[in-house]
Amino acid sequence: MTDRPQNLPKRARPGRPPTLPAARERILDAAARQFAHSGYESSSVADLAAALGVSKAAIYHYFPTKQDIYDAIILDVLGGLSAAVRAEAARAEPGLARLRAFMLAHARYFERHHARFVTMLIGYSGMALPERGDAARLRDGYEGLLREILAEGVRLGQLRTLDVAATGRAVLSMLNWMVRWYKPGGGEDAEAVAAGYYELITRGAQPRP
Amino acid sequence: MTDRPQNLPKRARPGRPPTLPAARERILDAAARQFAHSGYESSSVADLAAALGVSKAAIYHYFPTKQDIYDAIILDVLGGLSAAVRAEAARAEPGLARLRAFMLAHARYFERHHARFVTMLIGYSGMALPERGDAARLRDGYEGLLREILAEGVRLGQLRTLDVAATGRAVLSMLNWMVRWYKPGGGEDAEAVAAGYYELITRGAQPRP
Repeated sequence: MTDRPQNLPKRARPGRPPTLPAARERILDAAARQFAHSGYESSSVADLAAALGVSKAAIYHYFPTKQDIYDAIILDVLGGLSAAVRAEAARAEPGLARLRAFMLAHARYFERHHARFVTMLIGYSGMALPERGDAARLRDGYEGLLREILAEGVRLGQLRTLDVAATGRAVLSMLNWMVRWYKPGGGEDAEAVAAGYYELITRGAQPRP
Repeated sequence: MTDRPQNLPKRARPGRPPTLPAARERILDAAARQFAHSGYESSSVADLAAALGVSKAAIYHYFPTKQDIYDAIILDVLGGLSAAVRAEAARAEPGLARLRAFMLAHARYFERHHARFVTMLIGYSGMALPERGDAARLRDGYEGLLREILAEGVRLGQLRTLDVAATGRAVLSMLNWMVRWYKPGGGEDAEAVAAGYYELITRGAQPRP
């Protein structure tokens, strides 16, 4: 933290938070871009401050450590994804239509929050991921929603009897791996990719009579 | 590099490589474990030397930089995967059987070389992956093999007419995402997971008449 002189103009008087409009969101957006591009370990609060044109102190006012910024990104993106996808799924008919709604809403959220999504899934390298209880609960709830949708499809006879946990994992694997290859603004959009995955996984690659 | 005195006993005379049996493989194995666990950025040659019980100089004798160790791991695992999977696929009948052989051989290789595989796919965080021409060629060749197998399945009428590039990406997404959740030595082995994915992607989740 930098020392602050005792007599500052009114807009930055002592005790007042550093002025940074929509500060929290701007910090998280810039940090996510940095983490997504270079990885957590190679990113620094100094680089982040430079990218935002503010002092390190202005960032530390909102987030005491780099890890706090990372945690906030993960919780925001997981919470936002869960809420958006849950709402879309609820609007669709149960069964296959709801599975499709889940997959397409997931892809749209990924596309709209690309840097935060990449940060969540590959921004922290290696297997020694920092695991926070609240993030784990959000993720488990999200995976649980998908399993419920699949189980409902089985009950309705729209899906064959299958291992819903393994099938849910297959669906999320295809969607999540997009962080490794998908570039927003390229050819096909993320939603179209997800629609193709839905088609493949429900209809299967073998010819149907 | 450390300075080396001019008069050393015969077993470490000047000009002789540092003694480390099966050195290259031992270094790559230990480095892969470190990269897989903690990520490339958080791993150091000093830690690696300590893990192996040798000097940093002994490691630098084989690999001038940490990046050279990382590159060697990627080339080894990509080359080994391609060779092993290509051989297994060639032994299977063309079409569906060959697709299944590809997927199961991929999973077995992943299980046997877990740390190197994890290093290749998530050990280097963020999107700023170092891309080497020879690694890219190996990867493109591997993806090309899968697309050939799928196209052959279509020609034989064992697969419906589909986008082989998108379908190949779906297959590899499911297999590759295993680096994020699969723990060797747990319940189901990697090959059984791949067999489930094969079943799902070929037969589809919808009931067949």
